[in-house]
Amino acid sequence: MPGYLITIEGIDGAGKTTQAALLGRYLTHAGYAVLATHEPGGTPLGDKLREIVLGQGLGPTTAAAELFLYLAARAEHVARVIRPALERGLVVLCDRFSDSTLVYQGCGRGLDFGLLTAADALATGGLRPDLTIILDLPVEEAQRRLAASGRAADRLEAEGAEFLQRLRLGYLALAREDKERRVLVEATGPAAAVFARVRNIVETFLREKAGLGDALTGPFRPRDC
Amino acid sequence: MPGYLITIEGIDGAGKTTQAALLGRYLTHAGYAVLATHEPGGTPLGDKLREIVLGQGLGPTTAAAELFLYLAARAEHVARVIRPALERGLVVLCDRFSDSTLVYQGCGRGLDFGLLTAADALATGGLRPDLTIILDLPVEEAQRRLAASGRAADRLEAEGAEFLQRLRLGYLALAREDKERRVLVEATGPAAAVFARVRNIVETFLREKAGLGDALTGPFRPRDC
Repeated sequence: MPGYLITIEGIDGAGKTTQAALLGRYLTHAGYAVLATHEPGGTPLGDKLREIVLGQGLGPTTAAAELFLYLAARAEHVARVIRPALERGLVVLCDRFSDSTLVYQGCGRGLDFGLLTAADALATGGLRPDLTIILDLPVEEAQRRLAASGRAADRLEAEGAEFLQRLRLGYLALAREDKERRVLVEATGPAAAVFARVRNIVETFLREKAGLGDALTGPFRPRDC
Repeated sequence: MPGYLITIEGIDGAGKTTQAALLGRYLTHAGYAVLATHEPGGTPLGDKLREIVLGQGLGPTTAAAELFLYLAARAEHVARVIRPALERGLVVLCDRFSDSTLVYQGCGRGLDFGLLTAADALATGGLRPDLTIILDLPVEEAQRRLAASGRAADRLEAEGAEFLQRLRLGYLALAREDKERRVLVEATGPAAAVFARVRNIVETFLREKAGLGDALTGPFRPRDC
């Protein structure tokens, strides 16, 4: 497919939304057609499932139901949004994707990795990210950020520090397992400093994979954001 | 577990709802504590997902999303309703269960049986029916019944005769594969005549498995319904 799928991963509070926004503006500025999206969600059905799975009301009470709701949302997202955008040559930036399933449902909930991988492959139709940026920071720092932002804890965030620690270790393990596709980024410090690292990785990726030259040397700087 | 899970399967129009109701009344009359339920649904989350998956509006557009919505509903249904009822010793009658997934998503949608079986086992936590009654009738007869009942075709029923034929053949294959647990019942003819066959099978099952004696020889007759 002519486009590129770049996914942003990490525990809640790692700064995924901020970095995805900075990266989207940066790539747009550099002349790329960019689609920024997120999971769960990104389609009308996905948004409804997001409401269900992350809400405090009618949410799933079993790890299996939780997994299947995420996968249903992903199947729609890939088929209706991500794949068509990639076919049109866009750079798709996705806030969370398959690695979230491996980490949250595998390391977090303890579900079998073999089954998670197979079920996820059905949901994605075999689509894998070209590049995954994993934002890493200590759990305590992530929790401080969430508290400072005043965001209400959703179902998963409400699980507590021990759960978040398992997730962090899961992301670290994924990063070790596939250093080609997944790149670990230290996410402590100011957003602009983190973004300098993210930008560097994405530039390297695009230069290597897409043979990109000067387009990424324009006047855009993190402080523009 | 002390209770029994009896599932009723078959294509739409085969008479599952009618036979489940007759069987529920019969077993109640015979002194059993019975829980009658259905899929997708049976829990608040399941009912919401049923609305989504079978409705004409926000429904899934991919076979994968459809599968995962059914499995999410099943995971909640088993954990919240079926398993607790079985633990209390009830006879649970369920209108559709795992075999519907194998037939509709496997034979109907063409998804991989190995993955369906593994994902379903996660949804059910390994729970399998003690007895499955498969109501079989020609597709044309099922369609005539649906038309006569004035029921609007849902997403799956709207797929047409060729699709329904694949489902029927799928059920016939399942029945051949496990003759111990799955019993095929000819579902043509009046409901009372079909129920005489169903009752016979359930009586045999309960006598063999539960060592049931005279409780099933009471005055209840199909014509009571």
